[in-house]
Amino acid sequence: MQKPVRVVQYGIGPIGLESIRTVLSKEHTGRIKLVGAIDIDPAKVGRDVADLLHLSEPTGVVVSDDAAKVLSESNADVVLHTTSSFLGSMYRQLIDCAEAGCHVVSSTEELSYPYDRHPSIAEELDAVARQHGVSIIGTGVNPGYAMDALALMATGVCTQVHNVTVERVVDASKRRLPLQQKVGAGITEAEFAQKKATGKFGHIGLRESLLMVADGLGWPLSSVEESLEPVLADEKVDTPYLSVEKGQVAGIHHSIKGYVNGTCHLILDLKMYVGAKESFDSVTVDGVPPMKMKIADGIFGDTATIAALVNTVPLALSAKPGLHTVKDLPPVRAFATKLSEVKS
Amino acid sequence: MQKPVRVVQYGIGPIGLESIRTVLSKEHTGRIKLVGAIDIDPAKVGRDVADLLHLSEPTGVVVSDDAAKVLSESNADVVLHTTSSFLGSMYRQLIDCAEAGCHVVSSTEELSYPYDRHPSIAEELDAVARQHGVSIIGTGVNPGYAMDALALMATGVCTQVHNVTVERVVDASKRRLPLQQKVGAGITEAEFAQKKATGKFGHIGLRESLLMVADGLGWPLSSVEESLEPVLADEKVDTPYLSVEKGQVAGIHHSIKGYVNGTCHLILDLKMYVGAKESFDSVTVDGVPPMKMKIADGIFGDTATIAALVNTVPLALSAKPGLHTVKDLPPVRAFATKLSEVKS
Repeated sequence: MQKPVRVVQYGIGPIGLESIRTVLSKEHTGRIKLVGAIDIDPAKVGRDVADLLHLSEPTGVVVSDDAAKVLSESNADVVLHTTSSFLGSMYRQLIDCAEAGCHVVSSTEELSYPYDRHPSIAEELDAVARQHGVSIIGTGVNPGYAMDALALMATGVCTQVHNVTVERVVDASKRRLPLQQKVGAGITEAEFAQKKATGKFGHIGLRESLLMVADGLGWPLSSVEESLEPVLADEKVDTPYLSVEKGQVAGIHHSIKGYVNGTCHLILDLKMYVGAKESFDSVTVDGVPPMKMKIADGIFGDTATIAALVNTVPLALSAKPGLHTVKDLPPVRAFATKLSEVKS
Repeated sequence: MQKPVRVVQYGIGPIGLESIRTVLSKEHTGRIKLVGAIDIDPAKVGRDVADLLHLSEPTGVVVSDDAAKVLSESNADVVLHTTSSFLGSMYRQLIDCAEAGCHVVSSTEELSYPYDRHPSIAEELDAVARQHGVSIIGTGVNPGYAMDALALMATGVCTQVHNVTVERVVDASKRRLPLQQKVGAGITEAEFAQKKATGKFGHIGLRESLLMVADGLGWPLSSVEESLEPVLADEKVDTPYLSVEKGQVAGIHHSIKGYVNGTCHLILDLKMYVGAKESFDSVTVDGVPPMKMKIADGIFGDTATIAALVNTVPLALSAKPGLHTVKDLPPVRAFATKLSEVKS
């Protein structure tokens, strides 16, 4: 009988909380077990995670703001890490995990392909991970799957590839409020311009996905072109959380292009806005043979990111020590599903 | 500057010949180089492979029927192996390659997931591969991609999976004559029944794909149900190679179901026949979130199998020694594409 993988949840925002819910829902399979929870929010510290999830039975796992203590005392195998989109200010957390002997699966978008924005951090993470015999992986639905790993895999049955175009259209009406706010739903064009000028607006990870695909294909990019524009509502849109008037910003159109020898060969095009008529993911490979892959209704982002994190746990355990990207790990697949459950 | 991967082609039937063509077409990238060719056909032995491909310039690679000599003298890194669909009578060829220190990427359908039909051969191949520090991998478009690796990857963003249904519909009108004959195009229902009774008819690898997906999901199958029926032409079908009259066999409908605890949770459904109105590949995951992935027009099998083989070369080189299946290797992606080429 295999022992369950012992998991610590590091960061209990909306994604971290759902990650805990998912891990708990899988505990009865005997494959995975929550053994710790870390967050600095005083409103959460000291509470049983069951309390945060409104579960009737306590789990015995109490939120702590003392990461070092949890990491050293929980005897965890893997840390599910969801504290930030950015590596710069946070990567010490990952090093702490590795030094405690824990593999790390993180939703940090900049970690999904860190070699461009943060080469020295990537080098340090890789060295520390190797030194402590653990793996560190950044993943999620996007970056980590929809616009990179899946795109690469679509080219895997082509003898020649001329161009790759990846599209993702997300109807933000069906997503949680923080995401609607993240894409600027309901703000004015002028406010959009102001947000854009901060350089911290738009989808995080598009550049990482582009560079991962280019790297995977062995295409040295001569230049990269990124654009971020508002999608304006062409009619009033009501969502459970907010309403957007006609002419206001409904969301973002974020696009990035990769050029080889001065010609564009790689396009990642992302639209996330409230009121999108059709959500979908697609990968189009102009190659031999051509490939047109489409996921109807799109991949539901919040759930999918949590799934990608939890499903990567066994891949992290079996990977060789070091920093990895999803292009270097086996294709992610569902983990610890149990079929005797009554289907809801 | 990286040295090109040195490749031997072992088996020069229709697939092997196109594999050679593909390797040669990639030589200018400096990533791969053909250094040997093995076949027992007297009509091919002694001829430059350029001659077989009707190329104007000789390559210097001459077909030999002396596998041991080619393997020992070519200093090859990887053998592309395409001699048989079946392991039983042939696996010594793979052992010879491994003992010569060559990684093996093979189109042998039974090798794609050999643990069920050939557990002792699988064990021996794994042991020999480890002993000689090489990897052995069976792949192709199906098995190896469309109905297994891609299906697994579709579940990777699901927190829960209830059922997985994989469909592949191939319009055999657009495929080569051997494939049309393989699916029985133009024979009678009675002839189909006779062929079926031999146990050597139908698509090879469906059971392997099913077991790979079940294994990848950690689903212990309680039983497997397989069916093979003719698709009858509902009108006359003309192809460049043959014609099928109304009422004759147009091709096969080959289906396999995997049961867990007595309930069917996994369906692989394959139709290959001349006159199919729509070719496609699809993976439908009844899970959380649900996933509906579809490849319009389907993956063109002959080219895709060759692509899968050649694209797996770098994955074989970087895999740890041993016998692997595609579920344990990174997602396959196009290898040695060069973008400066004029698009045809």
